[in-house]
Amino acid sequence: VIIYGRNAVRESLRGRRAPAVGRLWATPAAAREAWLRERDPVLVERRELERLCGSPGHQGVCADAGPYPYVSPSRLIGGSEGLVVALDRIQDPQNLGAICRSAECAGALGVVLAERRAAEVTPAVCKASAGAVEHLAVARVTNLADFLTRAKQAGAWCYGAAAQRGRPFREPDYGPRVVLVLGAEGRGLGPRVARCCDELVSIPLRGKVGSLNVGAAAAVLMYAILQNGPRRLDRDP
Amino acid sequence: VIIYGRNAVRESLRGRRAPAVGRLWATPAAAREAWLRERDPVLVERRELERLCGSPGHQGVCADAGPYPYVSPSRLIGGSEGLVVALDRIQDPQNLGAICRSAECAGALGVVLAERRAAEVTPAVCKASAGAVEHLAVARVTNLADFLTRAKQAGAWCYGAAAQRGRPFREPDYGPRVVLVLGAEGRGLGPRVARCCDELVSIPLRGKVGSLNVGAAAAVLMYAILQNGPRRLDRDP
Repeated sequence: VIIYGRNAVRESLRGRRAPAVGRLWATPAAAREAWLRERDPVLVERRELERLCGSPGHQGVCADAGPYPYVSPSRLIGGSEGLVVALDRIQDPQNLGAICRSAECAGALGVVLAERRAAEVTPAVCKASAGAVEHLAVARVTNLADFLTRAKQAGAWCYGAAAQRGRPFREPDYGPRVVLVLGAEGRGLGPRVARCCDELVSIPLRGKVGSLNVGAAAAVLMYAILQNGPRRLDRDP
Repeated sequence: VIIYGRNAVRESLRGRRAPAVGRLWATPAAAREAWLRERDPVLVERRELERLCGSPGHQGVCADAGPYPYVSPSRLIGGSEGLVVALDRIQDPQNLGAICRSAECAGALGVVLAERRAAEVTPAVCKASAGAVEHLAVARVTNLADFLTRAKQAGAWCYGAAAQRGRPFREPDYGPRVVLVLGAEGRGLGPRVARCCDELVSIPLRGKVGSLNVGAAAAVLMYAILQNGPRRLDRDP
């Protein structure tokens, strides 16, 4: 897999995929940056870079990084505290990347993606996340409702984000182990996934536009849930 | 000005620019939607639409909407309560659109843009905001530091968002009249603008990536400031 973009490539060199990063390519201009120069990239022209990574958004640098290293879903269930963000059919790579970046910044344990009808962690997602996916734990599951059921059995509380009809998001006492479930742009949570949630929460809308962008909603909810830092208080003490 | 995109055109028909909206164009497929059919759009093919609006992102519809109706900056200074979002050299149309959408959803009074070296409310911004700019009050100023000085004289408190070195954003008691100042992607606030702020606030970063996307940061801060709703408590009682 060829990843591209300044932040994406730089974070890949110090993140979970670092051992798999092989050859780097850069334009002569981009290669002047210290972090890149010391890696001795192959110098190529912009057009050649665009051909290599298949996108004009390379910002002068790309790298052969191997496949994205997904983690096992079990790794996101076991612990005694923390926030996991579960995405139900998020299809836009920009939104997926933005949510991963916010999750990494907010200090979430990781992100879970449903395998079907959803975006994967492609190079475009890596770039949109500013390289955050190189540090973040991302897992894929075949069935998100089953994952939520397992997480609840392991002691987590599951909160689904609903555009309307949820409880105002500041009201719940979220506890130490939370799964926040976010639905697809426009359509929201699937019915089975919504039923698996312990509670639905909503961000109050005071304007005339119907909804926040899912990336903005994700950031607001993650920081609300993590505002006091994780606390120790299990579902089944 | 030709605006494009489903939400952008639909919101323009019920927003501040509505009286100026003239002819509509749509593909036969898009024109089947009820809200569009009743406006009797000119039917054209996709390629013709792309030529009309200069973008492949038209989603089957565009409209002649006249210039964007900026409001006077004074309108955003006078009131006794509310949040104004001031943007210092935000250049990316996607980010400007995302911030405007969140501002409209959160119930901000409006957004102020510096005229120089910054994005304007173009059709691309209108689309990126999902049409929110059609309802939101957006003003332009030649000098943002001067605007902040006037806002402070009128009783508002100005908070600048800083990636680091600010006070944790949940600590301040923001009061009823707030200007939130957000800086350019990567570079942050300009020094003169930062000096004009009463206080700098930061969102805690718990990961390895350097910063949140400015759109995500904007949403988190706006909802934190507006969390209790505007309160009556003037700077100079």
